[in-house]
Amino acid sequence: MTRLTVWCEEPDSAAVREIYPEGLAAAIAAGVHQADQGIEVRTSSLDDPGHGLGDGLLEQTDVLAWWGHHRHHEVPELLAEAIQRRVLRGMGLLVLHSGHLSRPFGKLMGTSCNLRWREADDRELVFCVAPSHPIARGVSPVIEIPRQEMYGEYFDIPAPDELVFISSFSGGEVFRSGCCFVRGQGRIFYFSPGHETYPVYHQPEIQRVLANATRWAHVEQAPAVETADSLNSPVGWFSAPAS
Amino acid sequence: MTRLTVWCEEPDSAAVREIYPEGLAAAIAAGVHQADQGIEVRTSSLDDPGHGLGDGLLEQTDVLAWWGHHRHHEVPELLAEAIQRRVLRGMGLLVLHSGHLSRPFGKLMGTSCNLRWREADDRELVFCVAPSHPIARGVSPVIEIPRQEMYGEYFDIPAPDELVFISSFSGGEVFRSGCCFVRGQGRIFYFSPGHETYPVYHQPEIQRVLANATRWAHVEQAPAVETADSLNSPVGWFSAPAS
Amino acid sequence: MTRLTVWCEEPDSAAVREIYPEGLAAAIAAGVHQADQGIEVRTSSLDDPGHGLGDGLLEQTDVLAWWGHHRHHEVPELLAEAIQRRVLRGMGLLVLHSGHLSRPFGKLMGTSCNLRWREADDRELVFCVAPSHPIARGVSPVIEIPRQEMYGEYFDIPAPDELVFISSFSGGEVFRSGCCFVRGQGRIFYFSPGHETYPVYHQPEIQRVLANATRWAHVEQAPAVETADSLNSPVGWFSAPAS
Amino acid sequence: MTRLTVWCEEPDSAAVREIYPEGLAAAIAAGVHQADQGIEVRTSSLDDPGHGLGDGLLEQTDVLAWWGHHRHHEVPELLAEAIQRRVLRGMGLLVLHSGHLSRPFGKLMGTSCNLRWREADDRELVFCVAPSHPIARGVSPVIEIPRQEMYGEYFDIPAPDELVFISSFSGGEVFRSGCCFVRGQGRIFYFSPGHETYPVYHQPEIQRVLANATRWAHVEQAPAVETADSLNSPVGWFSAPAS
Repeated sequence: MTRLTVWCEEPDSAAVREIYPEGLAAAIAAGVHQADQGIEVRTSSLDDPGHGLGDGLLEQTDVLAWWGHHRHHEVPELLAEAIQRRVLRGMGLLVLHSGHLSRPFGKLMGTSCNLRWREADDRELVFCVAPSHPIARGVSPVIEIPRQEMYGEYFDIPAPDELVFISSFSGGEVFRSGCCFVRGQGRIFYFSPGHETYPVYHQPEIQRVLANATRWAHVEQAPAVETADSLNSPVGWFSAPAS
Repeated sequence: MTRLTVWCEEPDSAAVREIYPEGLAAAIAAGVHQADQGIEVRTSSLDDPGHGLGDGLLEQTDVLAWWGHHRHHEVPELLAEAIQRRVLRGMGLLVLHSGHLSRPFGKLMGTSCNLRWREADDRELVFCVAPSHPIARGVSPVIEIPRQEMYGEYFDIPAPDELVFISSFSGGEVFRSGCCFVRGQGRIFYFSPGHETYPVYHQPEIQRVLANATRWAHVEQAPAVETADSLNSPVGWFSAPAS
Repeated sequence: MTRLTVWCEEPDSAAVREIYPEGLAAAIAAGVHQADQGIEVRTSSLDDPGHGLGDGLLEQTDVLAWWGHHRHHEVPELLAEAIQRRVLRGMGLLVLHSGHLSRPFGKLMGTSCNLRWREADDRELVFCVAPSHPIARGVSPVIEIPRQEMYGEYFDIPAPDELVFISSFSGGEVFRSGCCFVRGQGRIFYFSPGHETYPVYHQPEIQRVLANATRWAHVEQAPAVETADSLNSPVGWFSAPAS
Repeated sequence: MTRLTVWCEEPDSAAVREIYPEGLAAAIAAGVHQADQGIEVRTSSLDDPGHGLGDGLLEQTDVLAWWGHHRHHEVPELLAEAIQRRVLRGMGLLVLHSGHLSRPFGKLMGTSCNLRWREADDRELVFCVAPSHPIARGVSPVIEIPRQEMYGEYFDIPAPDELVFISSFSGGEVFRSGCCFVRGQGRIFYFSPGHETYPVYHQPEIQRVLANATRWAHVEQAPAVETADSLNSPVGWFSAPAS
């Protein structure tokens, strides 16, 4: 069983509520659970106590999905650093759409994560360029999203450790839309489809990708590698009984 | 259930039989099955009919483990090409130890795959450098192999898509000993520990790595990407019913 | 000074001669030299003696540019293998457009190198996704090619060691159009723009990319790594005087 | 001409002064200049005004070499962020030895950068695993450092974009000792040899590596990619006159 927490800055907008009446987090969580019932989902919001991540929730989370847009700056620096540390110790992180500018993602990437964008009802085509990747399992070669916000290159991220999807848009732009990163013992997947005023998260193939990514990002049993400190290691330390 | 076929050029040597009385293939297969009972194993030998891969065995194999050393040239070019094509269509391939100079691996890599070597009872230390990788699951940070053939850099392979293990040897050499490659829809893991005159395949941690690698290399359901030919694709091909 | 040999299967077609009256090889060579006068160019053709690579030309070539399309099968296997070996020993290789199915490239990649294609006057947009890469030096963020053959994903290549350009086409397809690979001591750049019935090679930015790629692929002084054979290496071999 | 600034937290220690009477920065700078006279060097110190990087020095620097150890915390957060931004806009960065825990490197990597270590006069052997890489140009396959501090795996960094050197130590440890990272438009090389109480920076091959790395990290003319902000991009923005 994989425990997924879908964290969301719920947009306060009639346009969004029309498409996602229960909210974005609930829609994402329901879609992932429908695609893979082995994933246990819960939701959390920026407006909850502790900015939605109090009471040890991070420690009880195998994979955290993050959707934020206009209120990135309301996530305290200290919380962003706590999330970063938790990822380095093995929590998976799915960064969705406008989460590219969120504080946790920025700290983990080290780059500006800026990109080009346009809200103009572009059609997005999501092409798989890593057909054997677990995140692409059961997904068709092209996912068509009728209307989406355009996100285009240059996307200022480190070269992904694995590039799974590349998108095009009606206006001719391209975008690295599905990117895997490994940082410390944690696994991170950035997936750009998912603007709040389009029903993207209702598409079964998008739900399938998110479920696959949740499984991929869940590190079940890491080796006993210690990264909390730089270790002074006497000669022969590795022959001692496994700690 | 993952179907693993362990193919072996069984060395005809008293020294080997002393360590592996049932043969290398049987020892490797038994070790993998012990580490993960969800893997169904069978063995096959260069001396079997069809060089051990006749009667449609390749099609019934999810992951092929390959151990060969002195008789690489006895594997026909056509068979090596059939294995290569089968990997590109999704079969996993574990290339063990001296298999670095085997024909299937050479064709898939495109490089000489040469390396430095020495038989001198070196101690090998296998360090994990990708602690969240599925192949490292449950493995300790260092595996100590009391006596091994030395394999050292420069190892003439493409840069691995993921580097999981790096080894050192008593003589001071280093070696990229656990390397992941993705080719077409197939996943390949090269793992160097395993000389035939040392009991390496009896070590539980080595068995654990091979079992993990079998799972990792098994692509259960690839997307409907067609690579058997270059496809002339009319405008809008992707909106047609999935072919 | 970098010595570039532009090898070409010159298409025997009035349509091509109209755009490239001196032939494709001459046009490519002239364009590269114009973009960077430090590159010494010569041309060679499949119809020349020795299939255009006799008389030790490979040894006198720092970087080989390869343009072929309909006559890949006329390049003998032995010549393709000689080119492969020469690359592994340090020659650069620029594989242009339809050269993705050439024998030397296929042997170096190990995959089918198949892709989707369409001749329908698509507009191609070439986006840079590696702005600090030497091959992108002085190139604008997007190169617009008014009419091009469409090449689309899935492109069955190993994940590039560095991905420099991604293209889109009018029909919505995307393509990894500028890909770096390192194999042995050789450096390979695949660049897809360049169909023979469009004046792509007359565009200054395309010429700039090819000149930059020639410089990038030229390995001036590799370290004394020996890959022609697997070397039996006694303890302490590295402390001997440099061989 | 490439302008290299060697920044150093000069250790206040008789042991260091014995080996580097002019200081570490001066020794490193002199060594690089001796290896490649096309590199213009200057030095700078944590104890200089503006922590050694005031008066627009960052803007006048093509490549910054960074040596720090015990006083990382004296580099203000704001200065570390300014260095990070300057790298993202194209400055090269060489992070030397104990700089793995420096603030600028940590911010650019996003991981803990912890490792194992030991001061016990280990011999370090530095093996080249990327023989065609510009940083390895003219370097022998193995560099022997008679006495060095041990730095060992697991080294908590992102997988390098290019791995150039792997080291072993007398105690049997291995370490990814020469690692290339591209972040934004900047190029970063981490190189671990160089403990302050050993004469490592006097070795000509180490100087050669640092000079090569300086050249590699110098991005002379990046494409006009804008990353300072996320750009709202109207349809057809790329066809406008190049900005």
